[in-house]
Amino acid sequence: MTEFTAALATFAAGPVSTTTQARIITSLSVLDWIAVGRAGAAEPVSTLVRDMVLAEGGNTQAHLFGGGAAPLRGAALVNGTVSHALDYDDTHFAHIGHPSVAILPAALAVSEWDDRILVDMLESALVGMETSIRVGLWLGRGHYQAGFHQTATAGAFGAAVSVGRLLGFDTGQMRSVLGLTATRAAGLKAQFGTMGKPYNAGLAASAGVEAALLVHGGFQANADALEGSSGFAATHHGAAYQSALDGLGDEWLFETVSHKFHACCHGLHAALEAARELDIAEPEVAEIKIKTHPRWMSVCNQLSPTTGLGAKFSYRTVIAMQAMGYDTAVPGSYTDKVCADPRIKSLRDRITVEADESLSETQAHLSLLRRDGIRLDATHDLLTPMSISDREDRVRAKAAKLIGADDSDAIWSMLRTGGRALDLANCVAG
Amino acid sequence: MTEFTAALATFAAGPVSTTTQARIITSLSVLDWIAVGRAGAAEPVSTLVRDMVLAEGGNTQAHLFGGGAAPLRGAALVNGTVSHALDYDDTHFAHIGHPSVAILPAALAVSEWDDRILVDMLESALVGMETSIRVGLWLGRGHYQAGFHQTATAGAFGAAVSVGRLLGFDTGQMRSVLGLTATRAAGLKAQFGTMGKPYNAGLAASAGVEAALLVHGGFQANADALEGSSGFAATHHGAAYQSALDGLGDEWLFETVSHKFHACCHGLHAALEAARELDIAEPEVAEIKIKTHPRWMSVCNQLSPTTGLGAKFSYRTVIAMQAMGYDTAVPGSYTDKVCADPRIKSLRDRITVEADESLSETQAHLSLLRRDGIRLDATHDLLTPMSISDREDRVRAKAAKLIGADDSDAIWSMLRTGGRALDLANCVAG
Repeated sequence: MTEFTAALATFAAGPVSTTTQARIITSLSVLDWIAVGRAGAAEPVSTLVRDMVLAEGGNTQAHLFGGGAAPLRGAALVNGTVSHALDYDDTHFAHIGHPSVAILPAALAVSEWDDRILVDMLESALVGMETSIRVGLWLGRGHYQAGFHQTATAGAFGAAVSVGRLLGFDTGQMRSVLGLTATRAAGLKAQFGTMGKPYNAGLAASAGVEAALLVHGGFQANADALEGSSGFAATHHGAAYQSALDGLGDEWLFETVSHKFHACCHGLHAALEAARELDIAEPEVAEIKIKTHPRWMSVCNQLSPTTGLGAKFSYRTVIAMQAMGYDTAVPGSYTDKVCADPRIKSLRDRITVEADESLSETQAHLSLLRRDGIRLDATHDLLTPMSISDREDRVRAKAAKLIGADDSDAIWSMLRTGGRALDLANCVAG
Repeated sequence: MTEFTAALATFAAGPVSTTTQARIITSLSVLDWIAVGRAGAAEPVSTLVRDMVLAEGGNTQAHLFGGGAAPLRGAALVNGTVSHALDYDDTHFAHIGHPSVAILPAALAVSEWDDRILVDMLESALVGMETSIRVGLWLGRGHYQAGFHQTATAGAFGAAVSVGRLLGFDTGQMRSVLGLTATRAAGLKAQFGTMGKPYNAGLAASAGVEAALLVHGGFQANADALEGSSGFAATHHGAAYQSALDGLGDEWLFETVSHKFHACCHGLHAALEAARELDIAEPEVAEIKIKTHPRWMSVCNQLSPTTGLGAKFSYRTVIAMQAMGYDTAVPGSYTDKVCADPRIKSLRDRITVEADESLSETQAHLSLLRRDGIRLDATHDLLTPMSISDREDRVRAKAAKLIGADDSDAIWSMLRTGGRALDLANCVAG
């Protein structure tokens, strides 16, 4: 009955054998997370949640994006919310969620407060993110389709485990913290498109911290509340796929996390990557045909948006922007002004978008007809493994754009050479 | 689609016409809540959650059961948890939950902090509790049967509305706060029998405070997230019975709240009340036959428990205790020693319990055969309306037993004559 909880708890409380790949990608996710958090620190939702937490006062246990510090639970709430405010953080397609924004705020806050070394923080974060992916897989797509925001629900379990590991939990405590988290993991997709979406990530991080602190103090919860006939999966449309445990401890599903390299809807990324492969430049374009999975047609195919926000959900606009030399990695590139630019509008009119059932959700196909009559085609799949060096180059380039090359390089160097979590935490304020 | 949310928001934001009955019962619930909160302040779960919140430091915005003060969110978490620790607070059978423990911690904390008069606090609490009952009815028994703890889920909406009313929300803000609460209302029955049950109440109170503070600050949420195809009811096995709105604004369902007069499982109360009507005294008992609804047979029919906790779930033991003159209203009456008392054991052996399909869950039948050969029968239904004066007598007597007559009288006088919420809040520390 409680096999899944037991397996997760054993994994999370025991020694783990990480891979170089997993360690580097974890560090890249931390860099990426700090960059998008700092870039999103002035968003309205960020300011609102931070102001609420700062108004409470309290011990300055952990730094906040945007400045200031707060007790652990408050810091996790703020940093989870802020880092998801731009929706520019990493994504794991099997988890169906964003691992970093739920787990890293919890792991970093507790590591800073407990003055841990970065190696410990990174390992606990990796274990927490792997846990969130496994829980997400276990709950399955039905949980997501029913209306739950896996980032928040599965994420809360990952955050709890990550903090539990930092606090030295044994297997029994790990079971307890998973069970306790089951009574409060929450988050609805109904909030997508509102401030509620990033807030869900903050809730997950904060819930994980709170549950772990309580279990650390001796809280006795039903350790089996994740499973069973009235457990989290049963009550929340979760399938409880036991295959979610396959390879646990040997294989790090976290290694297949995707980083976002464009500050727009994820449905547009495969097309932007295909366009990048073709290295399209506007003067040569006679026409561009984009093919994409049918699901995206209702999500991000605004034909002629007039606002920066609309541009982030428009194939024709983002491909035109890229061909015109706009940097789609920079959130500030998406403006009302761009939408009104006559050259963008003219190019946009040469671009068509159609659904193609043969493509997966992570694939897109671009067909470029050049003015010289040559046709070039490219298909990109976001699931195509990226070499570790390519990934490093691109994440570091993205971070450099968001927070400056000096800060990006300094953070990367810190992550690769080790040191105290406190020093890293000092970097979140910007 | 969002008719329910709109109706609740209109009710909660507008002027309300309360009845004398509703006002007195609200005050009785506040007295009852303070008494059970103070009596439960040293329970292990109470200490744990309070210690966690106090360790955060922060502005002393609201008093805590057990002493100290904390920021609003933390105070609501602590006081919700502590006041439900003994499971001795009020119950509303239609809500399928405990209204006071989710709403009063939120309403009192914010009223204290904002230095409001008690009349305002009591009205906002009543509106919040009525809202939680309506949401509970709207979600329906299926939500509870699926595994959700309505005290926590429906309660969070009531807490949010109560705080929103204190903060002067208009209808639009009320809609927003209901929508925002939908993304985080949570709580599983799987935690019953563990510290997680009272914690669920604290979560509800704290979630309501947080959602209301954020909406007060300008947070934009999906205001329709309670309803709709991916809203709270749809995702949480809620039936969305529109009849839950019947009489809203004219009729206060809160008036039918039940107060607990015995510090044991609610399934035992009807039998204890029937025994009280028969005024059973041990020497005259030849035998007692108890009939109860079948559902209670697996809940609270431990035949010969050996621990105080077991006694709280044992028809035979509590009826024997009452007949022997033990005060079943006092938590300290239920001890291991009582279970080992030869006179209790002897009397217990003269008591039988059987299921009777013809009784409702709130009914019990007692048949007493006296040694003189006379048989006396009594049936009690917890839903039988109690006169307001009887209810006042019994709640005040209970409170006097838990916190002493002087404090109970002083709090009651304060509640009936008005004054500042701050003065009432000073009473929670004990």
